[in-house]
Amino acid sequence: MATAPSQAERDAVLTLARELISRASVTPEDAGCQPLIADRLEAAGMAVESIDVEDVHNLLARHGSGSPHLMLVGHTDVVPPGPESNWASPPFEPEIRDGVLYGRGAADMKSSVAAFVLALEAFLEAHPDHPGTVSLLLTSDEEGPARHGVRAVVPELEKRGMMPDACLVGEPSSRDRLGDVIRIGRRGSIQGRLTIRGIQGHTAYADPRDNPVHRAGPLLAELGRLDFDDGDEFFPPTRLQVSNVRAGTGADNVTPGELEIWFNLRNNPNTRSDALESRIRHLIEDADPGDWALSWRVSGEPFGPASGPLPGVVETACRELLGIESKPDTGGGTSDGRFFGPLGIPVVELGPVNATIHQVDECIAVDELVLLPGLYRRIIEGMLKSGGASCASS
Amino acid sequence: MATAPSQAERDAVLTLARELISRASVTPEDAGCQPLIADRLEAAGMAVESIDVEDVHNLLARHGSGSPHLMLVGHTDVVPPGPESNWASPPFEPEIRDGVLYGRGAADMKSSVAAFVLALEAFLEAHPDHPGTVSLLLTSDEEGPARHGVRAVVPELEKRGMMPDACLVGEPSSRDRLGDVIRIGRRGSIQGRLTIRGIQGHTAYADPRDNPVHRAGPLLAELGRLDFDDGDEFFPPTRLQVSNVRAGTGADNVTPGELEIWFNLRNNPNTRSDALESRIRHLIEDADPGDWALSWRVSGEPFGPASGPLPGVVETACRELLGIESKPDTGGGTSDGRFFGPLGIPVVELGPVNATIHQVDECIAVDELVLLPGLYRRIIEGMLKSGGASCASS
Repeated sequence: MATAPSQAERDAVLTLARELISRASVTPEDAGCQPLIADRLEAAGMAVESIDVEDVHNLLARHGSGSPHLMLVGHTDVVPPGPESNWASPPFEPEIRDGVLYGRGAADMKSSVAAFVLALEAFLEAHPDHPGTVSLLLTSDEEGPARHGVRAVVPELEKRGMMPDACLVGEPSSRDRLGDVIRIGRRGSIQGRLTIRGIQGHTAYADPRDNPVHRAGPLLAELGRLDFDDGDEFFPPTRLQVSNVRAGTGADNVTPGELEIWFNLRNNPNTRSDALESRIRHLIEDADPGDWALSWRVSGEPFGPASGPLPGVVETACRELLGIESKPDTGGGTSDGRFFGPLGIPVVELGPVNATIHQVDECIAVDELVLLPGLYRRIIEGMLKSGGASCASS
Repeated sequence: MATAPSQAERDAVLTLARELISRASVTPEDAGCQPLIADRLEAAGMAVESIDVEDVHNLLARHGSGSPHLMLVGHTDVVPPGPESNWASPPFEPEIRDGVLYGRGAADMKSSVAAFVLALEAFLEAHPDHPGTVSLLLTSDEEGPARHGVRAVVPELEKRGMMPDACLVGEPSSRDRLGDVIRIGRRGSIQGRLTIRGIQGHTAYADPRDNPVHRAGPLLAELGRLDFDDGDEFFPPTRLQVSNVRAGTGADNVTPGELEIWFNLRNNPNTRSDALESRIRHLIEDADPGDWALSWRVSGEPFGPASGPLPGVVETACRELLGIESKPDTGGGTSDGRFFGPLGIPVVELGPVNATIHQVDECIAVDELVLLPGLYRRIIEGMLKSGGASCASS
């Protein structure tokens, strides 16, 4: 294990994390988080710009030029706290109790953002002439519809030739202890909505063949037992789950005019969404349930496992600084990594324990929070100084 | 064709039908219909009693003794008229326009009840010493829950040894023209509600085997293609129709904790309800969809085709008095015949054209209404005077 952070380093990240949590940046609000960060990173020598899209604030800070380009990715918005009375202390008044910092965003992900800032400041002070590029992209629209945040900035980056070679996302990836889980990819998510139309009638007289539930029975059985792939070392198998089924008027003696089947597909990179769509459409055609329509919405393409040096650099940093063997994982919900990963850019997510995210009394252990700046700094150094191998901090 | 009714006969049935329609006997109200009828039938020599059960009025009138015992069955209640403004003339103010009598109950079934009274009066005047028994059973709870009407009277009849040998129900059986269709039986109706429980979860993580829709798929396919019997000369095949399917929270990413499948079975007498229940339960057990529960409610047992002389007597009366070949049929909704038929008592239904029943501007053609008393009288005569063969009225 490396040296523990000094009291000054502890105070610095704790102070900034508290300042950020104090700003009630309920999505898509930024509430002044990004201007605060912009000032500090400009002072540290970074080129900072705001890229505002509609009501969303995005901040892009850069230092250096050319490859390798490591981008840190995070967000300043938080999910709503719900009724304040449910919290032991007010959600936007950060409070430490028994060595734990409480407040909305403490884990997701203002502590990571504060640590990014401290890590960049320390890195740039130590290595003002580092090779390659280090950048930070923050948005205030990760927890919301995520239309005007990173999704909107990526095309701008592409246009300017500023796409990173790798992304480190500060989302809370850890399960029980900081660094025990890192995310190296994500399954895709697809929403399918199948409507099968029949002819409504009286149960006593209608032709059962006009009943859309009767027509769809074999198809529903098929949908429920579909196999796609076996998954692999990093990903669970691609899976379909029916989420909703609706047919009928609520009357006992009327046959339904229409059946709705909603399903969700979680696909790993071994099964592409267009191949899935084609397979599902053929399945429906073969089942021939009569008049049908399928709505197909890909809300995220799968990506990963992350290639290149980043996963190794992150694992080494966790091993050396935290004394932990990180488990590479592809679970969890969506993050802004989805706007880079499917483009072939390696994305690794590393951040606090996620046990309390989106809940009341969201929190982070202070002893883990103070380790984050050194951890992120070590990863930046590992990526920029040595082209992938880990190295000691200066 | 027999002689047309005289003007006095026409006036008599029309007057009584109008008097009954004027009484707003929305189920379970009788609104004075039965007392009016009781007075007349007592005057005609019948033994009349009221059998009131809870808020329901039932009237039983008898004449004669022993077999054969023909019971006329009808009801004095009507379905609600809905907003009066939707009617061309007020529903409880009978009005004749262009030879058609309008009013709630004109077809279902105050015209038949009026005709029963006239037929009984004429029959008893002509045949005071007829063999066997003729009776009339009226209720004010046919259109409602039908718990305290004929359903409640039948056990009383059984207790007293007064069950009829055959029932003539005055329900509107005709389709286009009086007498074109007679009902000689009914399919049964069964409501099944199957609940399959699984474990609710997130579509990304839940085990698809816990999803009740996946578990139920093959069963749903089986339910939709079940065959029971081929029907016969009188009955269509027994059929199952799924009426409602419900699963899911409405969210796209949550698997359902429970699936509800409602179905309706219409069974002919060749497939008994207990055999059906056993078969469905075995089907579910074999499909093994996990934790399930089935609610099974028989709302009517099948009966028919009517045996004995009554169907022939009715057909002959229709042929001789109306010049029509009646089509024996087992369609239509429930009627109080269901409380006799399944006990093995032959039930035939003959009444007005049913095109407007339960609708606004319910009506009956006056020229058909005035034929009803003679028709019913001829059937009573056919059953009581000759033991089944038709005979001319005196």
